Amino acid sequence: MQTMKIQLLLTGNELMAGHIVDSNSAMIADMLADYGYTIDKKVTVGDDLSVLAEEIDQLSRNADLLIVNGGLGPTVDDLTAQALAMASGQIIREHPQATAHLQQWCSERKLPLNQANLKQAMLPADATIIANPIGSAVGFSIEHNHCLIACTPGVPVELRAILNDSLVDIIRQRLPQPISPITRRLQTFGIGESSLQQMVTTTLPDWPQQVELGFRAGFPLLEVKLSCHDPDHHELLLQWQSRLERLIENEFIGLDQASLAGSLVEQLAATGQTVTPAESCTGGLIASMITEVAGASSVFQAGLVTYSDKMKHRLLGVCPATLERHGAVSEAVVIEMVKGAISISDADYGIAVSGIAGPEGGSENKPVGTVWVAWGHKENIHSRRMQINGSRKYFQRVVANRCLDLIRRELQGITAPPRYFRDSQGSSD
Amino acid sequence: MQTMKIQLLLTGNELMAGHIVDSNSAMIADMLADYGYTIDKKVTVGDDLSVLAEEIDQLSRNADLLIVNGGLGPTVDDLTAQALAMASGQIIREHPQATAHLQQWCSERKLPLNQANLKQAMLPADATIIANPIGSAVGFSIEHNHCLIACTPGVPVELRAILNDSLVDIIRQRLPQPISPITRRLQTFGIGESSLQQMVTTTLPDWPQQVELGFRAGFPLLEVKLSCHDPDHHELLLQWQSRLERLIENEFIGLDQASLAGSLVEQLAATGQTVTPAESCTGGLIASMITEVAGASSVFQAGLVTYSDKMKHRLLGVCPATLERHGAVSEAVVIEMVKGAISISDADYGIAVSGIAGPEGGSENKPVGTVWVAWGHKENIHSRRMQINGSRKYFQRVVANRCLDLIRRELQGITAPPRYFRDSQGSSD
Repeated sequence: MQTMKIQLLLTGNELMAGHIVDSNSAMIADMLADYGYTIDKKVTVGDDLSVLAEEIDQLSRNADLLIVNGGLGPTVDDLTAQALAMASGQIIREHPQATAHLQQWCSERKLPLNQANLKQAMLPADATIIANPIGSAVGFSIEHNHCLIACTPGVPVELRAILNDSLVDIIRQRLPQPISPITRRLQTFGIGESSLQQMVTTTLPDWPQQVELGFRAGFPLLEVKLSCHDPDHHELLLQWQSRLERLIENEFIGLDQASLAGSLVEQLAATGQTVTPAESCTGGLIASMITEVAGASSVFQAGLVTYSDKMKHRLLGVCPATLERHGAVSEAVVIEMVKGAISISDADYGIAVSGIAGPEGGSENKPVGTVWVAWGHKENIHSRRMQINGSRKYFQRVVANRCLDLIRRELQGITAPPRYFRDSQGSSD
Repeated sequence: MQTMKIQLLLTGNELMAGHIVDSNSAMIADMLADYGYTIDKKVTVGDDLSVLAEEIDQLSRNADLLIVNGGLGPTVDDLTAQALAMASGQIIREHPQATAHLQQWCSERKLPLNQANLKQAMLPADATIIANPIGSAVGFSIEHNHCLIACTPGVPVELRAILNDSLVDIIRQRLPQPISPITRRLQTFGIGESSLQQMVTTTLPDWPQQVELGFRAGFPLLEVKLSCHDPDHHELLLQWQSRLERLIENEFIGLDQASLAGSLVEQLAATGQTVTPAESCTGGLIASMITEVAGASSVFQAGLVTYSDKMKHRLLGVCPATLERHGAVSEAVVIEMVKGAISISDADYGIAVSGIAGPEGGSENKPVGTVWVAWGHKENIHSRRMQINGSRKYFQRVVANRCLDLIRRELQGITAPPRYFRDSQGSSD
């Protein structure tokens, strides 16, 4: 087994019981990766004092650095300080620096310093404080088994602040900074993992060993990661990166943190154009994805969520006769919706969507999952029916992402139909 | 150390590198919890064959059941079958049942069966197939160290399908079903963990030992969990649950899967009323949270996202002079917005929000994070300025959640101001 350097221990019954998704370990890994550090192993256990103490002891034997996350809160199920004291044979005592922090924290918020909060100052005797610039719980570290054990809060915003403010520096002082691997992450939309792997195998059969290739089927994007550890192979990586980008072609969204909405906003902003969505079944999700991008205000003036027939008519000017004749989920209606959206907002591009998100509302001809989309430049509107099966939330997310992608393709002048048009289910892999 | 029964091994460089958040382990834990099973420990390692094989061997020594998740895909970094074969000393060979599944899967999708896919049929010699009703990768299990090792796909929808269709049954055949603990989960909004802990300590000092109390600071809700293991204490739990609900009072949202939007839709539907949001800085997020709830169409006819001044005027009838005099982020503007939204949609309730999400757009008097909200019944509109600091995405989510909460409180006739009005930062803990 290889030498372990950095390990991560996450605590909390809520992490074990499935009521919460752990995003903290990804945050820690992501931040450490910026400095070339990788985490070798992460372990999660529940709030049981002896289990926690045992894991801390075991993990610290095989690590130079052990980051413990969670269990610093004010409640009785927060056991990290006690477990650490037990593992390292130390007593628990009130730490004056932690008490001072709590006093200031409470006084700034005009809150009384209560007993529950004061528990957060009870730390292993040898603990060194790691300041928490946001929350009431200070972080702290001790040495044990020749390993630096750093305890961090479970509340994500506090963890982020501690990492940024001091923990990364503490780690860099402790561990020699490795040579960071050179990596490039290509974001793609609308192509499946095995299709892409097969395309690479067939079209680029002489892919060089020195450039490692990895895939991550995220949602909504499939990420392709190229990496090499030897700086001498950097040029080689860049060459093969451009070959791969040409191969992926129309399904290539961008590098690193690129997103469908980000790419859309960027392209519209570059040409001084705007887009207006008119949403029924996605209920505002398209608008909210666009406006999550900083700077969206230069390309987005308005979005209309027209859930009822009456509002499709009143806000977008959809003709009652069209609704009556074709139903709200129809080609004729989405075309009138997109034209109305463009007209009322003076936008250059529009997208309109109407479908049956379920679980109710389906019929034989239009089952749950049926969706009609109309999109395009004000002078060139397209339309398409798709069928997307899954939960209501899944349906809404898939539809909203495809809508952003359709406008992106239009802006880039891509005329080839997307792969998700091929089958009625829309799954490309 | 306690006897470990069920352990979980998650594989993948992407999980270690921080590019992806693991939601699968929560899904597995959640589903097993329905049958009273708990996971004792979960370990995550990267895509390294010998590390994986070593972990499989180690974990299986202390478990009756080891669930391995991920690494079943078609690409070269998918190593689970190989690692399992290595750990258990078996050879890898093509499994006819897996090949047949792949052939059918590809033919249904009119895709060629390529070499990348065929790799998914190469399994440890003694593997028993676990059918995958959705994806190309079959699951499989083997016995090793007197432990049942079940390998499951990393793609969430496939994992869910396998769990539902067969894995839960396999587990129930293997492990005697424990007596499920009786649990009640109370969802709260707008109260902090330490405040609530302190309230319990002060107001309910004789809290019974038999009823375990736990807190989980989620976003946006703080969950309080009551549980007892002895069925004889069920009545006791229910008694203390109602005491706790009365204590939490206005900040109590509901039980179990209750959400702000769900509670809002339910209350509006019960009284046959509707709500219309008019959003600027939240950009459609309020509308999309409401419409994510099944059945939203009975209480939600429309949502208006008016990002520019022009659209605030054109779609909501906000007076250009008001915008000119007070600026878009002002009390006067949000009041005109909410009135416009109610009027155009004939809604009973409205909510309007305008603020500076950042990172650009702040000024000395209205820094980034400033937000004005107006909300209420058509005949009784309130307004409030708040300051919410954090990233653009955090700001948008906090604002949208508080907006839903403000309407919820209005519907319930709560006149006490929420705790997040107390300080300008809005943090109550």
